[in-house]
Formats: sequence, structure tokens, C-alpha cells
Amino acid sequence: MRPSKRTPDQLRPVQITRHYTKHAEGAVLIECGDTRILCTASLDEKVPPFLRGKGQGWLTAEYGMLPRSTNERMQREAAKGKQSGRTMEIQRLIGRALRSVMDLTKLGERTIQIDCDVIQADGGTRTASITGAFVALHDAVEKLLRQQQIETTPILAYVAAVSVGIYEGVPVLDLDYLEDSRCDTDMNVVMTSDFGLVEMQGTAEGVPFSREDLGAMVDLAQSGIRELIRIQKMALAG
Amino acid sequence: MRPSKRTPDQLRPVQITRHYTKHAEGAVLIECGDTRILCTASLDEKVPPFLRGKGQGWLTAEYGMLPRSTNERMQREAAKGKQSGRTMEIQRLIGRALRSVMDLTKLGERTIQIDCDVIQADGGTRTASITGAFVALHDAVEKLLRQQQIETTPILAYVAAVSVGIYEGVPVLDLDYLEDSRCDTDMNVVMTSDFGLVEMQGTAEGVPFSREDLGAMVDLAQSGIRELIRIQKMALAG
Amino acid sequence: MRPSKRTPDQLRPVQITRHYTKHAEGAVLIECGDTRILCTASLDEKVPPFLRGKGQGWLTAEYGMLPRSTNERMQREAAKGKQSGRTMEIQRLIGRALRSVMDLTKLGERTIQIDCDVIQADGGTRTASITGAFVALHDAVEKLLRQQQIETTPILAYVAAVSVGIYEGVPVLDLDYLEDSRCDTDMNVVMTSDFGLVEMQGTAEGVPFSREDLGAMVDLAQSGIRELIRIQKMALAG
Amino acid sequence: MRPSKRTPDQLRPVQITRHYTKHAEGAVLIECGDTRILCTASLDEKVPPFLRGKGQGWLTAEYGMLPRSTNERMQREAAKGKQSGRTMEIQRLIGRALRSVMDLTKLGERTIQIDCDVIQADGGTRTASITGAFVALHDAVEKLLRQQQIETTPILAYVAAVSVGIYEGVPVLDLDYLEDSRCDTDMNVVMTSDFGLVEMQGTAEGVPFSREDLGAMVDLAQSGIRELIRIQKMALAG
Amino acid sequence: MRPSKRTPDQLRPVQITRHYTKHAEGAVLIECGDTRILCTASLDEKVPPFLRGKGQGWLTAEYGMLPRSTNERMQREAAKGKQSGRTMEIQRLIGRALRSVMDLTKLGERTIQIDCDVIQADGGTRTASITGAFVALHDAVEKLLRQQQIETTPILAYVAAVSVGIYEGVPVLDLDYLEDSRCDTDMNVVMTSDFGLVEMQGTAEGVPFSREDLGAMVDLAQSGIRELIRIQKMALAG
Amino acid sequence: MRPSKRTPDQLRPVQITRHYTKHAEGAVLIECGDTRILCTASLDEKVPPFLRGKGQGWLTAEYGMLPRSTNERMQREAAKGKQSGRTMEIQRLIGRALRSVMDLTKLGERTIQIDCDVIQADGGTRTASITGAFVALHDAVEKLLRQQQIETTPILAYVAAVSVGIYEGVPVLDLDYLEDSRCDTDMNVVMTSDFGLVEMQGTAEGVPFSREDLGAMVDLAQSGIRELIRIQKMALAG
Repeated sequence: MRPSKRTPDQLRPVQITRHYTKHAEGAVLIECGDTRILCTASLDEKVPPFLRGKGQGWLTAEYGMLPRSTNERMQREAAKGKQSGRTMEIQRLIGRALRSVMDLTKLGERTIQIDCDVIQADGGTRTASITGAFVALHDAVEKLLRQQQIETTPILAYVAAVSVGIYEGVPVLDLDYLEDSRCDTDMNVVMTSDFGLVEMQGTAEGVPFSREDLGAMVDLAQSGIRELIRIQKMALAG
Repeated sequence: MRPSKRTPDQLRPVQITRHYTKHAEGAVLIECGDTRILCTASLDEKVPPFLRGKGQGWLTAEYGMLPRSTNERMQREAAKGKQSGRTMEIQRLIGRALRSVMDLTKLGERTIQIDCDVIQADGGTRTASITGAFVALHDAVEKLLRQQQIETTPILAYVAAVSVGIYEGVPVLDLDYLEDSRCDTDMNVVMTSDFGLVEMQGTAEGVPFSREDLGAMVDLAQSGIRELIRIQKMALAG
Repeated sequence: MRPSKRTPDQLRPVQITRHYTKHAEGAVLIECGDTRILCTASLDEKVPPFLRGKGQGWLTAEYGMLPRSTNERMQREAAKGKQSGRTMEIQRLIGRALRSVMDLTKLGERTIQIDCDVIQADGGTRTASITGAFVALHDAVEKLLRQQQIETTPILAYVAAVSVGIYEGVPVLDLDYLEDSRCDTDMNVVMTSDFGLVEMQGTAEGVPFSREDLGAMVDLAQSGIRELIRIQKMALAG
Repeated sequence: MRPSKRTPDQLRPVQITRHYTKHAEGAVLIECGDTRILCTASLDEKVPPFLRGKGQGWLTAEYGMLPRSTNERMQREAAKGKQSGRTMEIQRLIGRALRSVMDLTKLGERTIQIDCDVIQADGGTRTASITGAFVALHDAVEKLLRQQQIETTPILAYVAAVSVGIYEGVPVLDLDYLEDSRCDTDMNVVMTSDFGLVEMQGTAEGVPFSREDLGAMVDLAQSGIRELIRIQKMALAG
Repeated sequence: MRPSKRTPDQLRPVQITRHYTKHAEGAVLIECGDTRILCTASLDEKVPPFLRGKGQGWLTAEYGMLPRSTNERMQREAAKGKQSGRTMEIQRLIGRALRSVMDLTKLGERTIQIDCDVIQADGGTRTASITGAFVALHDAVEKLLRQQQIETTPILAYVAAVSVGIYEGVPVLDLDYLEDSRCDTDMNVVMTSDFGLVEMQGTAEGVPFSREDLGAMVDLAQSGIRELIRIQKMALAG
Repeated sequence: MRPSKRTPDQLRPVQITRHYTKHAEGAVLIECGDTRILCTASLDEKVPPFLRGKGQGWLTAEYGMLPRSTNERMQREAAKGKQSGRTMEIQRLIGRALRSVMDLTKLGERTIQIDCDVIQADGGTRTASITGAFVALHDAVEKLLRQQQIETTPILAYVAAVSVGIYEGVPVLDLDYLEDSRCDTDMNVVMTSDFGLVEMQGTAEGVPFSREDLGAMVDLAQSGIRELIRIQKMALAG
């Protein structure tokens, strides 16, 4: 029995709110259970130096947690003067995941800057960031299309992410904080709407996991991502 | 005529939402027009080294803006590796303002850490931070009282803050971003519920201001702060 | 009775020495009682990126304290690797105060860099920095005029600054360190030669201050600044 | 056909040299083809603050590349003043991988510090670091046993790591730099001697990968790791 | 002929002013020609961690230049966020030079912190820092003796420093900035009152120097240091 | 009797291995006894800003120690976020020493970047770095000549370096770590193949040294450097 009382293959309730703030080209609040993240997509009419003059665009991501998004207050990274290894790892993951469904040559010489800021954390912030940021990215791209700054969308597919794990020997979907901290294995899976695997990161916190566990976890992840993409589509249709 | 169509002495609509997030001892979302700030108060059962063993508590504050809380995306301070002079100035101001209504000897040897994070900015973020953070502080102190960790409240009075300015020669209350950027003078005033002045910071951006301007601005500020404290009380009663 | 034996409206003795060092375009030692600050103005034939090509100049200021300018040695900010919030706040104030009396379009595309370095501190270093730096700025501008690099002076008025406070209930002018540390309220006032208010920053360290206190402090500040500007003029005539 | 002329399931030649330097408790040079990494294990008779008094040990890892270990010189991280996100990600991975085969309660209150420094890079530095560092760790633990500082080994199993990828549609083992840079998918797999999965990190650089690709890659990785652990054992027997 | 018109063995005029500022235990302004440096010695009743409980004291030094002490304004190291290699090299040299004439076991468990801050630079700032700092150190030690905090002086000898060089083929003493920048070799020599060599640092900027040049330079340095120590003694007697 | 059993004028065995790694234009492993340093020379077709358009090249050097190159593990400078004063001092010395034998106008507008990374330390790392880096520099220059990117060599002479010291009253050559740590005086000497002195840095760690000591140490250094240059020539001929 999971602490959350959910069945092994049950996602937490997901809520996606577009236009959550007024300045960004895409601004999405995603809520997965008690995890709440503000994902914005900002357009910048420049590319980084290594891409100048190459006729293509770029997408990059940053991630942060508000100091009291967590149960124990975390030290503010701006005050400490550096981002932790965990933060860097997560923001690199978000960037790679979203770039994997972009044809950057269709974006023109501009950068889309994704910011994922955790308002309240209860597990799964990196995967919720990807799922929410895709919607913000979609809104920003729609704006470029509407303003005829680009002709065809650079977005090749939907992309979403979810965590899976082995909780007391049972593969389970979408771990909350309590489950995550008691879990033997924690795996984050990023998939496209065609069920192409884009990124998998699995870590055995306690007992190593087997090939069978791996298969079961990927099955769960795939069903969860199917549902998350359905929710993304509803939000974008709304 | 103000761009916001407000009369010179009219505040923007103010909304205070308590318990906005679940982890912090005090967690308040304050909205002043389009300015939205999450203010949390966290308890820490330690004091900084310079106060150890002195039998009193401490209160300190940090401030940050989400990168896309503004019209142009601001660089993330955690990524840049340092807080700007403006950020430091504001967080020092918030800390002084709240400490001015605290009897820290009644707090015991613990620290209240205030975090003010701007979700959306439209002028007046430092004054809204103070007004909102007071409510979060009040909730955190109530928790200490309820849990009998302290016996009497260290809070001596209410405190709130508002900006005033000279817009096209006319003193006006509570500047939004558009008004602020076109204003000759911008002054931030912090007052207690007894109309004691706790902090005043006025800057002539263009033409210097006169003694008469100063008087008119303080009058406006006082009426605004009276209203803000009324709203704080309603929120805390709610 | 003030610890310094001065009457409430009495400035400390002020000494302004021009050409105190040989390299800078303006180099002024200002002494206010035991507070001694070296203020230099350096010309740089460039403007910061945000002003390039806009046909106007810029003025910026930095502030520092020698490690043993104070009673307790302060850690060297260069060794610590960052400037404190207090330092940043003060250097931003000095810059705003001096820019308030400059028509930067008359300066051409160049920057005047002000440096205020405290040799010995005994209260009032930020206000003495402004008063001294104005004289250094004036010398640097005179040099530009003499060398016919500009035609008309960009300086619109004199500017000086002084602190005022409430010491044991009595408003007093120009606090030294001992008075400052025992004071209920400390206010820094920056005024032009036309008695236009340029900047006011008042903080109640203990008891909040009233509207009457505010009026009395501004009166004292105005009389002090009149005297300081007289001394600036004498120094520049000398 | 792979650029390296190897068959899809062929490892590069691996050489493990123990006692490569004289100061460290474990000091191993691992060479995988042209990739050369010095892995040291250092004993420190302290644990980090969060473990003090808990009766267990700790293991942590750091990773670095010599500036000219790569084809283009990389900026020295010590001179830049910070470690890149990639560096942090890799050193966190190395630490987790080695801790996964340690019973830290058997280590006593001491820390084993792993350092992996890349002398020459030609792809697969993070996986070679893990494989080499395990041997250095083993030597350091043997020393503790020999000196009777611990009674039973905290090492629960062997652990090694290898990369796999999809190169022109074909799953291949142990990518060198040239293959890695042209590869569609790159996956790093860490496994124990019992074929327990400890860590998997797969990224689709171009086309997403399928469930079938995943299975084929894990098969290849398992065969590679079996061989690597055989080589570790030979080195430790030598 | 030297640009300064001095004979090859002629020092610049040297002026040592004690008690130049009021807070430090030793506070000396040293002027060597146009070079002006404030040297302070501060007492701290602690030693660094590596000496705790060892029954001896420590002396450490820091060095800085005011931004406009030089002809071209130098960027403020506190603003840049780090000290340059040159600064670190110089402050390490000052510390070693002064420690070489100290019996630190006689100092007790306390630290003397030397600060050398260049008010105006015209060559030879590192050697003048040593010569001036010795006098400040002497004053601080005298204070400890007077207050009976130590019984016997930890100072074993006088120490002073001077630069020598090869200017157009001729060995010359005490280079000013103009001479230094045109010089083939620049050597800094630190000697005790017994003519013991404590530190020598010679660099050929252009043509390498010979054994004969070396001998001639050390001769000049010795005569210069004899004179500098005479001046130190006069200042301390004054 | 030296701890190393060597005669006072005896170098440790020296081994120079060229082409030690494959990417750098010059890549030399130098071994002096147990001290082992990898010295690389990298070509960069740019010069730093202060030399742009001046028709000359530049050479700069960086130095680092692997964390466990020493007996006690040193903290990784990249992790600490800054280079120590010692590191900066050494890399500045290496750069000056090599530039002293270069005619940079013959190098064209390009930079040679030297990296000296200590694999194993046993005293004398800074002097071995210079001796080894010269060979790496020579290889990089030969490559430029071979590829006809420059016509004549910018190298004017050979350069090598060695340490000397006073060990128990006796001047000795080439100190290892044990000797260095018990030595009264430690001097590093850099000389060209014409026995021109390029750099001398001598420090009395205990008793000051005399003029006679200085002479004896320079004699020893000269004989050592003659031998080191012979070894450099053999390596380059090999």
C-alpha cells in the first residue's frame, strides 16, 4: 500500500494553468498533487555565441526552488552565490528534454529561455517541470506563429515526463516526496507523444534493480506519460 | 490624470491570501494590483553567531524576483552568482522594517527568516513585501504562541509600507510600474499602526522635491498605510 | 547634552583638501571631525553598454572602507570576494546623489567614476562621501572644460549631504559614531544648493519617529547643508 | 561499420595500473583505449557534519579534466572559479555508483574521498572513472583492513560502468569520442557483479529511442560490464 | 642618467608618520617619493585554526591599492570579487618578511594583522609596505608590552626592503614607476638590521642579468636598507 | 648528510617524456625524482585584448596540483572556487620564465598556453614545471615551423630552473619535499643556456642567509641548470 493510497499506476491529480503571469510569452502553473511549479518561456532575439550566424535557434532552461518550497528551508542559491550540483543537473535535463522535440532550424536565430521555479515541492519537481514547460514553450511558439515571425512550428512532438520507482518491491508511478524518500529505486522518464524515449535516469538508492524491474517501470512511465500528454493537449485546447 | 486612472490617493486593489503554501510557518501571497509576492516566515531554532547566548531572537529577510516576473527577463541571481545591490538594499529594508515592531527578547533564541519572492512585478514590490511579510510573521508568531514555545507575543504593533511619488507635479499614492518609471520622485514609507515613521526613503529621479512635496507625500502615505493595516487585520481575522 | 559637546545644530569641523593625490582628475580629502575620506573622480572616455551611441555621459560611484578605518578591524571585501549589502547601498546612493545635479547630455559619451575610500571612520561616512565627491567631480569637470573637451558644464547645482537624528529625544545634526550608535533615529539627507531634496533616508533604530520629528530633522539638515555648500565653495575658490 | 573498426559488442582495450602514484591510499590509472584517468581514493578520519555521531562513514567523489586532456583546450575550472554543470553531474554520479556497493556502517566514522582526473579524454570518461575508482576504493579499503582499522569490508559487490549507444541505427558498446559525437543515443549504465542495475542514464541526442533499443543497449552493457569486472578482478589479483 | 635625476645609489626622500589614524594599534603612513602607503597593525586575540593550542602567535598581511592610486584607474578588487595574482603575491611577501624577524612563541596566542593600502603609487609599493609595516608592527608590539600582555618583545631584529634594478646597464637603487617600467631587471630585497637576507626576488624583464649584476644590486640594496633602518629607528625614537 | 643521501651538488634523476598525451601541440611528462608533472603547450590563434593588432604573440601559463598529488589531500581549487595565492604566484613565475626566452614578435598574433599539472609532488614542482614546459613549448614551436605558420623560431635560448637551499648549514641542490620542509633557506633560480639569470626567488624560512650563502647557492644552481639543459637537449634530440 502506497503512503498516498494511490494504486501503483495512478498519477497524482494534475492541473495545468496557462497565462498564470502576464509578462512571459508562455507562463504555466503546473500542479501535480502538492507539487506546484511556475514554468515560463521567454523569447530572446539572440542566440548564444557558439550559434551566431548558423541560422538556427536555441532553447535553454533554468531551474530554482523558492527557499521555503520545501519542508526544511533551503538556503537561497542567489545568497550562497552558486547553484548546487542538483540544480545544474535538473536544468540541463529540462533543456535537453525540450530540445529533443524541437527542430531548432525552424526557430530562426532566437533563443527560448525556459524558467522552472518551484513554488511548493512534494516530489517529482524535475519531471513536472518538463511537463509544464512544454506547455509554456508551446504558447511561446504559438505567439511567434501568430505574429508571423516564424512560418512553421519548430515543435515536432509533445513531450512529458514522470517518475517511477520501486516502492517496497512494487513498481509504482509518480512518486510523491514521502514515497520517493523511502523508495529503493527512482527513475525519471521523458517520452514523446510517439512513445519515443528521450531521456531515462534511474538510480538505485538501496537495492539495485533488475532487468524485470526496468521493464515494469518503463511500462508504468509510458502509461503515465500518455495521460500527461492528454492533459497537456486539453490545457492547450482550453 | 494617472495612467492607472486612479485618483491621487487611491491604492490599487489589495488581496492577502494566508496559508498559500503548506510548508512554511507563515505563507502569504500579497497582490497589489498586478504585483504578486509570496512572503514566507520560517522558524529556525538558532540565532546568528553575534547573538548566541544573549537571550534574544533575530529576524532577517531575503528578497528575490523570479526571472520572468518582469517585462524583460532578468538574469537569475543564482546563475549570475551574486545578488545585485538593489536586491541587497531591499532585503535589508524589509528586515529593518519588521524588526522595528518586534521585541526580540520575547522571541527567545530563535530566528525568523522572511523570504519575499516576487512572482509578478508591477511596481511597489519592496513595500508590498513588507506589508505581506508582516502577515506571514504574524502567523509564524501565532504558531509559536499556540505551541507554547513563547508566552507573550514579540509583536509590538502592525507595520505596513507604501510608495508615494510626484507624478506630473501631483503627489500620488501607490505607484504602479508605469507611473514609477515616469515619476519625478519616488518615496517608500514604512509606518506602524500608531503612525510612527519607521523608514522613509525618497529619491528625486528628476527634479528635486520641496518641503511641501515631502509633507504632501507623507500625508498620502499615512492614509494608504491606514488602509493597508485595515486589510492586514481583516486577513488575520479571516 | 551630546557626547560630542556640540549644540544640536552644530556641524563637526569640516576640512576639504583638493589635489590630495596626483593621478586622479579630481582628488579630495574630506575630513568631518575624525571621519576622513579620500574622494576621487576619474574620467573614462567610454560609457557603459546601455548608453552607447545615445550621446550622453554617465557617472557611477564606488565606496570602500580600509580594513582598519574602524575601531574593530573589518574583513577586507576584496579578500572576502564580495561587497557587503551596506557597501552596495552606499555606493548606489552616492551615484544617485551626484547624478541628480548633472545634465549628463552635456558630458558627452564619457563616464566619471567616483571612488570614495574611508581612511578613518567616525560616523557619517556616506554623507561626507557625497559632500567630498562633489568637489572632486567639480575638479574633474573643470579639467574637461579647460581642455575644451566639453563646452558648458554639466553641473546644474551644488549638492551636499548630512546626517541628522533624534538623540535622547532631541533632533541633532551631524552624528558622530558614538551618537549614531545610541540614536533612536538616523536620517541622511541630500540637498542641492537650491534646497531641493534629492534623497532622504531615515530609519528608526529604536522608537519610531513622528511627523514633527521629521520636520525638525529636515530643518536641521537644511541648515547643515547650507554650511557644507559654503565650505565646498570656499574650497573650490581656494 | 564503427569508426573504430570494432564490432558492436567490442570494448576498447582496458588497462588498469594500481599504485600509479605514491601518496594516495588507492591510486589507479585506468586506460580505455585513448581515455586515461587517474583515480585516487583518500582516507579522511572525519565525516561531513550531517553524519557526525551517526556511527557510519561516507564516500564522496570529485571529477576534473586537465585543460588539455581534450582536443580543444578547455578553460581550467579553478581559474574560471567554478565547476561546470557537467562536472558536477559526473562527480555526483561517481559518488552514487560507488556508495551503492558500500555498507557505510562498516566503514566507521571516516570518509573515502574519490578523485577522478582525466589525463587524456577520448569518450567514456565518466564510466571509466567509475570502473577505475572502484579499484582505487578497493585498495583503500584493503589498507584499512590490513591496519585493522575496520574488521569486515564495507564493499558489498564489484561495480563497473560502460557506455552504450545507437550508432547509425545499430546498438554499440563503449563509444569513443568520435562515435559519441555522431551517435543518436548515448546511455551510461552502472552495474554490480550480480548484474544489479545501479544507475542508468540514457539521452537521445537525435532520434528518440524505442523500448527495443533500450533492451538491446542494456544487453550490450551487461556483457561489457561482465568483462570490465573480470579485468578489475585480475588487476586486484595482480 | 636616471629619469629621477638621482645618483645610482640614492634613495627617494622617505617620510614615516606614526599614529596616522586613530583606531589601529599601529598606524603608519610611509612616503617614499610619491609612493604613499598606509600600513596598519591590528591585534586579534585569536590564532588561525592550524595554530590553535600550540602556544604561539601568528602574523598575516593583506595588501590593496586604492582604485585611483595609479595613473590609470584600476578596477576595485572588492567589486571584481577577487584579488589579483599580483596582490596575493605581494601580501604573501609582506607576511613572510615580517614573520622572519618575529619569535612567534613570544607573541602568545594572538594574531597581528598587517594591512598595507596604497594611497598613491609611484613604484616600489611592495618594498615600502614592508618598511612601513615594520614600524606599525613595532608600535603594536610596544602596546602589548606596555599593557603587560607580553613580557618580552617577539621582535628579533629590524627589517626593511628596497628595490634595485639595472637601468640602461647601470645598477640603480629604489626605482620609481618610470624607472621600473623601463628597467631590464627589477629586484626586491628584504634584509634585517644584521644584513641577513630574508627575501630576494629578481626578475629580468628584458635582458637576463649576470652574476656581476647580481652582486652589484645586492650591494646597492644593502646600503639602501641600512639607510631605511636608520629612518625607521628615528621614527620610532620620535 | 642529506635525507636523500645525495651529495650537495647532485640532482635527482630526471626523465623527460615527450608526446605524453595526444591532443596538445606539446605534451611533456617531466619526472624529477618522485615529482611528476604533465606540461602541455597549446596553440591558440588569438591574443589577449591588450595585444590585439600589435603584431606580436603571447605566452601564458597555468599551474595546478591534482588533489592527491600530495601526502595530505589538498582541496580541489575548482571546487573551492578559487586558486590559492601560491598557485597564482607559481603560474605567474612560469609564464615570466618562458617569455624571457621568447621573441614574441616572431610568434605572430597567437598565444601559447602552458599548463603544468602536478601528478605527484615531492618538492620542486615550480622549477620542474619550468624545465618541462620549455620542452613542451619547443615542440609546439616546432609544429608551427613545420606547418610554415611562422618562419623563424621565436625561441632565443633554452631555459631551465632548479631549487637550491641551505640544509643544516650546507648549500644543497634540488631539494626534495623532506629537505625543503627542514631547510633554512629555499631559493628558486631560473637561468638560460647562456647562464643569464632570468628569475631568482629566495626566502629564508628560518635564519636569514648571508652574501656568501647566496653566492654558493647561485653556483650550485648554475651547475644544476647546465645539467638540466643538457637533458632537455637530449630529450629534444630523441
